[in-house]
Amino acid sequence: MTSTANPSIHIGTEQVLAQLRWRYATKRFDPTRKIPAATWQALEESLRLAPSSFGLQPWKFLVVENPDLRKQLMAVSWNQAQVVDASHLVVFTVKKGVGPADANKFAEAIIAQRNLKPEQVEPYRQMMLGFLNNLPACFDVDGWSARQVYIAIGQFMASAAALGLDTCPMEGIDPAAYDRILGLEAKGLQTLCSMPVGYRHVDDAYARLAKVRYPMAEIVEHI
Amino acid sequence: MTSTANPSIHIGTEQVLAQLRWRYATKRFDPTRKIPAATWQALEESLRLAPSSFGLQPWKFLVVENPDLRKQLMAVSWNQAQVVDASHLVVFTVKKGVGPADANKFAEAIIAQRNLKPEQVEPYRQMMLGFLNNLPACFDVDGWSARQVYIAIGQFMASAAALGLDTCPMEGIDPAAYDRILGLEAKGLQTLCSMPVGYRHVDDAYARLAKVRYPMAEIVEHI
Repeated sequence: MTSTANPSIHIGTEQVLAQLRWRYATKRFDPTRKIPAATWQALEESLRLAPSSFGLQPWKFLVVENPDLRKQLMAVSWNQAQVVDASHLVVFTVKKGVGPADANKFAEAIIAQRNLKPEQVEPYRQMMLGFLNNLPACFDVDGWSARQVYIAIGQFMASAAALGLDTCPMEGIDPAAYDRILGLEAKGLQTLCSMPVGYRHVDDAYARLAKVRYPMAEIVEHI
Repeated sequence: MTSTANPSIHIGTEQVLAQLRWRYATKRFDPTRKIPAATWQALEESLRLAPSSFGLQPWKFLVVENPDLRKQLMAVSWNQAQVVDASHLVVFTVKKGVGPADANKFAEAIIAQRNLKPEQVEPYRQMMLGFLNNLPACFDVDGWSARQVYIAIGQFMASAAALGLDTCPMEGIDPAAYDRILGLEAKGLQTLCSMPVGYRHVDDAYARLAKVRYPMAEIVEHI
């Protein structure tokens, strides 16, 4: 159940911004520091809670623990050591070919989790099907699904920063090699982004650089 | 300057998760409640701080205040009243045709904001140019830029939830009509998502529905 009132515990503006300012793309992780299990579970839950179009959740998040796999992935990530040094590594993948079956599956989940009768969910199911069965020829369904994964990436990085955890989003990898190493094609998944998570090394000079952002007037316009 | 230590003020797991659970796609906003200016400014700052590939920030966020524009946008948003009822409305747009000029512009910003000499930024500028000048023929640069905007969308929704503010991400709009109404083509921008922000109406029944998410075992895999 979701509360209708603003929870009294909501977080102050200064605290939210302090964590977002503290965040940076960590170039060097402390390989000796591991994220406590309870904190990691919270971060996984933040992924599970990520919003997506229609609620379809067209994704899978792979947490790579196997050290040998991590080494193989580092080799196809321009040898960036974060892939092996960070406490955890998440590979964000998109589910390919989202279609009517996904609408039906999600409708089943709504029925089960909200304890509803199928007919109560039928209008929503038909709305999803109406969209997915009538995509324009030019519509890139995998591109659309990929954008949803990036919502999860944004929520994940913001949540990690809130929790005092460092991340390094990596698009500059060989995604096809990730797919091969992780056996993703057979699962209908495709790699989008690799994300080491952990604690910055005390010697990471990048942590001391000013964050470079365009001035507010350039990126926000009031009309 | 960014601190190298975890800030001692980082936020607890229960608090982060409570806010993400509290969030939902708000169907009905309270039209009488306005977000205080200081809170809104913090939310805009969370947008400005959003990470993006190479740091290129290929976006512009339009805050639509003009009531007549809001009405026009509602008409091309399946008449969803959130567009006019919510305290604020943000239109997330992507900058089209990102290329070498953007790399040069960002390099200039690094030089200015980190007080560096051009030669210190030259390797990074060349790395960006090496990528942007050698995109594979099949590479969809606007799709890539759009994904960056979705990171900002994810960070924005998570930050809003942290601050106790409601949002309703809307992809189900007529983006081409948004572009026309807001005159975006001449600015090289394209609408991706419309986002009313404010406070849920006390009578929004959707606020009381369970959030439907697939079980952890389905969306996270440890390997």
